[in-house]
Parts: sequence; structure tokens; C-alpha cells
Amino acid sequence: MAFDISSRFRTGLPAPAAPWNGFPAYNFVGGHNDAASVPIDAFVEASERVLRREGQTLATYGLDSGPQGYAPLREFIAGALNARAGMAETTDNILVVSGSLQALDLVNDVFLEPGDTVIAEEASYQGTLTRFERLGVRCLGAPLGEEGIRMDTLANMLADLKSDGVTPKFIYTIPTVQNPTGTVMPEGRRLELLKLAGAYDTAIFEDDCYADLTFDGTRPRAIRALDTENRVVYCGSFSKTIAPALRVGFVAADWDVMSRLLAVKRDAGSGALEQMVLAEYCSAHFDSHVSKLQGVLHEKCRAIMEALDAEFGTSAEYREPKGGIFIWVTLPDGVDTMKLYEAAAADGVALNPGAEWSVEPASGRHSMRLCFGNPTLDEIREGVAKLADICHREFGVPVRSANVAR
Amino acid sequence: MAFDISSRFRTGLPAPAAPWNGFPAYNFVGGHNDAASVPIDAFVEASERVLRREGQTLATYGLDSGPQGYAPLREFIAGALNARAGMAETTDNILVVSGSLQALDLVNDVFLEPGDTVIAEEASYQGTLTRFERLGVRCLGAPLGEEGIRMDTLANMLADLKSDGVTPKFIYTIPTVQNPTGTVMPEGRRLELLKLAGAYDTAIFEDDCYADLTFDGTRPRAIRALDTENRVVYCGSFSKTIAPALRVGFVAADWDVMSRLLAVKRDAGSGALEQMVLAEYCSAHFDSHVSKLQGVLHEKCRAIMEALDAEFGTSAEYREPKGGIFIWVTLPDGVDTMKLYEAAAADGVALNPGAEWSVEPASGRHSMRLCFGNPTLDEIREGVAKLADICHREFGVPVRSANVAR
Repeated sequence: MAFDISSRFRTGLPAPAAPWNGFPAYNFVGGHNDAASVPIDAFVEASERVLRREGQTLATYGLDSGPQGYAPLREFIAGALNARAGMAETTDNILVVSGSLQALDLVNDVFLEPGDTVIAEEASYQGTLTRFERLGVRCLGAPLGEEGIRMDTLANMLADLKSDGVTPKFIYTIPTVQNPTGTVMPEGRRLELLKLAGAYDTAIFEDDCYADLTFDGTRPRAIRALDTENRVVYCGSFSKTIAPALRVGFVAADWDVMSRLLAVKRDAGSGALEQMVLAEYCSAHFDSHVSKLQGVLHEKCRAIMEALDAEFGTSAEYREPKGGIFIWVTLPDGVDTMKLYEAAAADGVALNPGAEWSVEPASGRHSMRLCFGNPTLDEIREGVAKLADICHREFGVPVRSANVAR
Repeated sequence: MAFDISSRFRTGLPAPAAPWNGFPAYNFVGGHNDAASVPIDAFVEASERVLRREGQTLATYGLDSGPQGYAPLREFIAGALNARAGMAETTDNILVVSGSLQALDLVNDVFLEPGDTVIAEEASYQGTLTRFERLGVRCLGAPLGEEGIRMDTLANMLADLKSDGVTPKFIYTIPTVQNPTGTVMPEGRRLELLKLAGAYDTAIFEDDCYADLTFDGTRPRAIRALDTENRVVYCGSFSKTIAPALRVGFVAADWDVMSRLLAVKRDAGSGALEQMVLAEYCSAHFDSHVSKLQGVLHEKCRAIMEALDAEFGTSAEYREPKGGIFIWVTLPDGVDTMKLYEAAAADGVALNPGAEWSVEPASGRHSMRLCFGNPTLDEIREGVAKLADICHREFGVPVRSANVAR
């Protein structure tokens, strides 16, 4: 009798993964970035220099730097946060992690247990929302405006929770280039957010993965920079500024949080070559690289807005992103973007259906997130045209495109 | 009123981590390896070649290879397992993970839930035992002999469990260079193990992290190679053969298991530079590198045995390891190695107390694991001498060392 190994699996497993079939022809999903901007020559140089200088430390777990990550990379990160986001970090406040996804897992593991309540922006990063759901945590969506979370509504939410005897564990926010809506929360509103968190005795989890990619090159001070009470845990990433495949992100937190993050972390560190090469590369080139990348992404952003205008006309509503690699598009009520997603996938166009990026899935069912970082300018134009065709075929909108009736 | 962020932490958190103070002077713990053996020149070459050829794929999550890891590395791994361990893997059976620790987490996540029972060798890898404990899984220890698990005792354990209505989820084994005892299970016994697993309807989790490091260069076929029923999930690592700081390991499993491992994996892949550089380096140099490393480690193993003989005399009992980077030493009944560990740590000598490497902590309380991969030959001699002094000071043994009464 043959053995069925699945008879030994645990209960409640997620459905099996499907085999991977390569990237779609028009790839408007995921945090992929501009391939031509990967700084190959400088990586080769950095890699040779750092390996020859200290490659022998690869023989030890954590190099010579201990569990918080390669010390020179932590020095770069602390310096960059201080210079670019007005923070005041030391290397002891920095933990290098394997992409910001690990930051989410570790911070969640320190703060959350089943039955807890958290608040997030009503449209937010899917990877965060699915994590809350898996952990059995109730997530409430704070309404968004042109400048991020609307503080009046948030105040009402917090007051309602308090009257129910509930203190949220934290408010999770992506204040700078909000994912997916692309807004930037101004400094005044950040101070209001801190004040509200103080009044209702809750913490803030600030996810700043896109903050270096504003198109005008400016960014407000981080919420953590404005915090005087150790209320904010902060995370960032090199995935969007340098390259996602590297899998290097970071957390900034005071020692009372850091010592707990380290206690729940069980992976013996992140990949050393990435940490070494990033430290070597970034200390010389980060500012100039990011400044150039801002321009490349801005051009792609303009291209996708032009393509949406040309192909969808007034059927596609969006707010011009302040930076980053994605645009949040709302289609007419008749369009179910989950169905559009399925039809488009079958035709080689990948998009993120809005329901998967919304605390209340129903509120995102006419919206979609389109990422423009990875496709070329031509692919952006062709892909959006193809998407308009598919949308017309499935839902009858847009009726006209590029001045031609369909 | 100042905010106490720990008031928002979850219940049941592990104790905070202590700040890192650098490696001890005599470092006999951890899977650290020989620093002089890190192949720096070849890494520099491999790194330049692979970056220039395909560095632009760093702009995409998973490169162009999907969620199972960089395809050329999976090709190397499958080929090496087939050539060196008699397996018959395709690249579809290989998942690249961030060190074998992630392999443990993923396999555990697919198979285990609180209340489950597993069987492990009575002395086993601490990282595995602590994981079972954290998951609320009962782990039973199978007695070990010169050739690994004693099959007669295992048969009795399985029969007893069956009479209690319990089917273990799997038998976790490190058959080749068992951690910590350094034994190698011969092929005949591997077949017996498969037969017993078959008779009692359980799976096998084969951890083969040290299998390439036998001192005589030979290894039996893997248990997974002998399995005809898809009963065995297999993991290995580059930490011991190349460098631990890289954090690259792998799982070999059929698709019914692989598709579940992928479904519970949420990290967007392992570091790309390591995967790219390892694939490039290993396809040219793995066999010759490992062959040379076997010799280096064998010399260090002889040095630690000589030092133990000289410094501890008959007070230190050990079995000569067949390979790897550690030796399992048992001291007289009067020596509590947990106390020795504390006293030695204060004096700059790090060791693994046996209780932490034993399914039943009490059974390991006179034993310790000493890792000899990272210290130099001189550090091995000095460190063991220092340890003997500390042990004499604390417990009165050894009475004599190097022919001198203490």
C-alpha cells in the first residue's frame, strides 16, 4: 500500500501553491523595479572590495557583527535615516532583516495575539492585511484622504473603541508614498497622529518602504523622528531603492522593543553578501542612485497616467502618486476588478485587484493597483491598452479609447 | 506620562535578548567554520561573472526563477544530491531556503500542530528541539548507538505509541554525521528505518546538513534516495560546506509536500546574491572545495581529541566523530555541564551544555558539545586546556592533565 504523506499534514493548511509559470507579459504587480537601474558595475566593484577586505568573516554566523546584522550596514542605515528622515538613530537601534516582510512578522510577533485589534489605512499593503488575518487579529480601516489618514475619523474610531474597552495594539501606517494610494502625510498630520496615539495609549508601526522614492525628492520627517515617547516602531527596505531580490530591510526601534524582536527572531541572520555589498555600495552611491531612480520612476508614472487617460478616459479615476512604483485606479461601479484580474491574467496582464488591498474587501472591488516600476515604457503603454481591451470585452467599459469607439 | 510600549506587547513573549558582546576568545559553539577556507578569490570571480551576465534580474522578486529559488542553483543542488547521495531529484523537487533553520520551520509548519508527537534522536540539534517545544509538540528520544538510532528500541517505541493510538507525524533524523554525536548510519540501518516507518505509517524528516563533511569522503545513500514511497522530506545546507553567514539551505521533496511548503512560505525568497554566487561557484568548485575542507576539519578534529586526551585524560569520554565540526564529550557524573558552561563563559570559553542538545535534558547533563570548525589549531589546544582548568576549579576533575597533578 502506497504511503500518502499528506495524511501526516497538520490541519488548517493553506491550499497548495500552483507551479510557477514565469512572469506575465505585462507585469503590473509586485514590488519589482526598473531593471536598467540595477547598478551592476558598482555592485561588482563593491563586491570585490568587501570580499577581499573581510570575506573570511563569512565563516561565522552573523559575520563579526552579532544578531542585529552587519555593523557597517547598520551604520549606513542609521546615518541615512538621520540625514533623510530627521531621525536620531544609533546602530544599536537598527536590526537588519530579510526584507520588510520579516519586519512585519517580527513586529507582529512581539505585539500581537489572536483577538487583538489594530488599525491600518483602509487601503493598505496586502502582505500586512493577510498577516493580520492569519494571526486572528481584527484590523479596522482608517479612511484615507489626499494627505493620508483622516484624523477626525481616526479620532472617532479610537473613541468608539475606547468606549468598548478596546485599546488597539498599534496603528499601522505607510505615511510616505502610501501603499497603494501614493499619498504623503504632511508633518502636521503626523504630529496629530502621535497626539491621538498618545491620547488613546496605543503604539504606531510606521512602514516607510517607499519614503526615499518621492518624485520631488523631498520627504517629511518620519513619525518616529517626531516621537518623543518611544511610541513608534519603524521599518524600511532596500527592495524599492536598490533591488527587491536582495531581500534586505531594516527595523528601527528602541532597545525595549529591539531586545524582544531579537528574542523572537530565529533565523541566524540575513544573507551576508547582500549586507556586505549594500553597505559598501550605499555608503558611496545611495543618494545619487536614489535621485536618479526617482526620475526614472517619475517618467514611468507619467507614462502610465498618460496611457490610462488615453485608453480608459474618464472611466479610470486616480490620484497622481507623489512617488513610488504604483498607482491606485478606480473603475466604474460595473467593473469587478477581481473578475478583471482573472480575465487579464489569462491574457498575460497581471494587476492587483483592489479587494486584496483593502481592509474591507468590498470597498476595493472597483479599484486596482497597477505597478509601473518594472515594465518598460513600451510595455506600460501596450499593457494598459491591452487591459482596456479586456475590460471593455468583459464589462463594456471603457466605451471609447484613444478617441476611437470600441 | 511617559508611554510604556511594553504594555502593548503580547502575552507569553520569550525573555528579552541580551546585547551582543562579540565572540568569546575560545569559541566552541555554533556552526561556524574554518575562516581560512572561505574561497574569496573564487567568490570574487563568480560574483563578477554572474552579476555581469544577469544582474539586471535583481530588479525582480525571485529573479527570473520563481518562488523555489534561483534555477541554476536548484540545478546544481539536484545534480549534487544525485551524484553524491544517490538521489534522483529534479529541480522541481528543490526549494532554496534561508539556511536549514528555515527548512525546519517550513517542514514543521506543514506537518505539525500542538499535541502532535514526533521522534528524534535522543541527542539532537538544539534548534530542532526548541522548535518542537515552542510548537507544543511532544518529542520522544530514540536511543543512539555507534551507528545512529538503535532500531530495536525504535521498534519498541513505535509499538508502544501504536498501542496508545498515537502515530508520530515524522521521525526526525540526522543520519550522516549525527549532530551532536558524529555517527553515520549505515545503509542497511537506513533501510530498516524506512521499513519501520512504513510499518507504523509515519514520515521521515532527514536533516543532512553535515553529510558532505565525512572525513573519509564517503557517505551512504540518503534515506530519501532509498525511499520508494515518498515518505521522506530532506534538507541540507551550504552553511557547513561553504559558509554559514550566507544563509542558504535547501529542501528536497515531492510536489505534494513542495506545494504546501510554498504555500506556508511568506518571505518572497532568499537573498539573491548568495544564490547567484553559490550557483556560479559551486558548479565549478564544490567537489574540490569540500574535499579540501574535509582534510582541514579532520586535522582540527584530531587536534581537539589530542587536547582532550592530554588535558582531561580519562575524565573525558567521547566517540571519534566520522566527520563534521563537533565532538560530543561526556564528563564524570560529578560534572554538571550547565554549570561548567556558565563558569566557562565567564572566562571566555564557549561550549554547548549537553542538556540543551538532549530530548531529555537530564540525560545530557554530564555531556557537552564542542565545535572545532572555527578555532585555529592553537586556539583549540589553548581553549581545551583552559576548559580543563575551569572544570578542575569548579568540580575537581580532571585531577591530572598533561601528566601534571593540578
